[in-house]
Amino acid sequence: MKLFYAPGACSLGIHLLLEEIGKPYELARVDLASGAQYEAEYLRVNPKSKVPALLRDDGSVLTEYPAIATWLAKSNPEKNLIPADLDGEVRMMELVEYIVGTLHAQGFGRIFRPAKFCENEAEHAAIREAGKAIINKGLAQIAEGLGDRPFLIGDGLTIADSALFYFLFWIIDRAGMEVPANLKAYYEALKARPTARKVFADEGINVA
Amino acid sequence: MKLFYAPGACSLGIHLLLEEIGKPYELARVDLASGAQYEAEYLRVNPKSKVPALLRDDGSVLTEYPAIATWLAKSNPEKNLIPADLDGEVRMMELVEYIVGTLHAQGFGRIFRPAKFCENEAEHAAIREAGKAIINKGLAQIAEGLGDRPFLIGDGLTIADSALFYFLFWIIDRAGMEVPANLKAYYEALKARPTARKVFADEGINVA
Ligand SMILES: N[C@@H](CCC(=O)N[C@@H](CS)C(=O)NCC(=O)O)C(=O)O
Ligand SMILES: N[C@@H](CCC(=O)N[C@@H](CS)C(=O)NCC(=O)O)C(=O)O
Repeated sequence: MKLFYAPGACSLGIHLLLEEIGKPYELARVDLASGAQYEAEYLRVNPKSKVPALLRDDGSVLTEYPAIATWLAKSNPEKNLIPADLDGEVRMMELVEYIVGTLHAQGFGRIFRPAKFCENEAEHAAIREAGKAIINKGLAQIAEGLGDRPFLIGDGLTIADSALFYFLFWIIDRAGMEVPANLKAYYEALKARPTARKVFADEGINVA
Repeated sequence: MKLFYAPGACSLGIHLLLEEIGKPYELARVDLASGAQYEAEYLRVNPKSKVPALLRDDGSVLTEYPAIATWLAKSNPEKNLIPADLDGEVRMMELVEYIVGTLHAQGFGRIFRPAKFCENEAEHAAIREAGKAIINKGLAQIAEGLGDRPFLIGDGLTIADSALFYFLFWIIDRAGMEVPANLKAYYEALKARPTARKVFADEGINVA
């Protein structure tokens, strides 16, 4: 297996899952800043020009966080990365979708890349504010659901936690935004996992 | 079961699945245009202020297209709305995610609600163009994968088809955009299903 990633991008969540699973894999860095995702070499991997993408041992490439994460989880069932019962599974999917589709794409996208929302720079401050509002509303709801439990669903790490992990890395460590205290504690505990420390080290990211 | 929907919104895809399954359900209309999704009554159903939301018989509410669709499919396994093999399942999820997360949210969102991307009206034409570019690129990729088959994955309707169904309703019937010929034929065939005709009739939508 080979993970196409960019340091600190949402591929961090898949990278964490690979470490949690503990089987051998390779990393291939995609330099998003220089536009490598639009060059022929990467278009052959993922014509959608996004990371994460996972090259599997059969030579096929899988894209989209929820699909890659589900495949990794279900092909390593002994790791319990997806709840075994249908209700747990769909509650987890609901969270994954909200984190990936709304908080990340609609919220953080506005903060990190306002130009993708509107090229006119005069609008960027307002767009960033709108992104923060989406994030604050969403994190308040997630914090309420989490309470003081260490994982979003059930009593072990699932692919919803690895999604919230990359997202909180952006919000807490990169953007320096305030988050509810229980989410901060949750993130710190995830960050202390040996698997998370390995992921940050592999990607060359310094976190406190 | 009760589906919270708005006529012609993305809840159309879940509505189609309910018809395909054929068990009794109720409809509850949410008037998005008048802002009913932000009123206390609907916030108790879905604090995220979005449709679709599905009230299940145990009194719990499920949100997010991929999660609701997966729950419906897996709790009615005899309908084969999700491929039985893991590779089929994740390939289907990859498509669902791309349709819901990119084509709908990033593409059609820019065309339908440019003000959500930037309040300044002077920017709206450019934002709509950016949305069209995302959609044209994405539909070209989906069309290539589809070929002349009648369904996206396998030989029956899955929850990826019901997602592409609502999206093509917007693109072809509402926005009047050109799409690759095979996608047009695919959409016309879906639209001719008795279940789809029932869904349009229930929602009060006139389609040719
Ligand atoms: N829908 C995709 C989104 C992935 C995504 O947004 N990736 C970002 C990095 S966090 C990316 O590759 N951006 C490069 C670009 O847009 O040019 C998924 O769920 O995997
Ligand atoms: N992530 C949600 C998105 C649902 C969505 O975008 N719903 C739209 C209708 S197509 C909506 O309720 N919009 C109301 C609003 O934003 O005010 C899902 O997958 O179900």
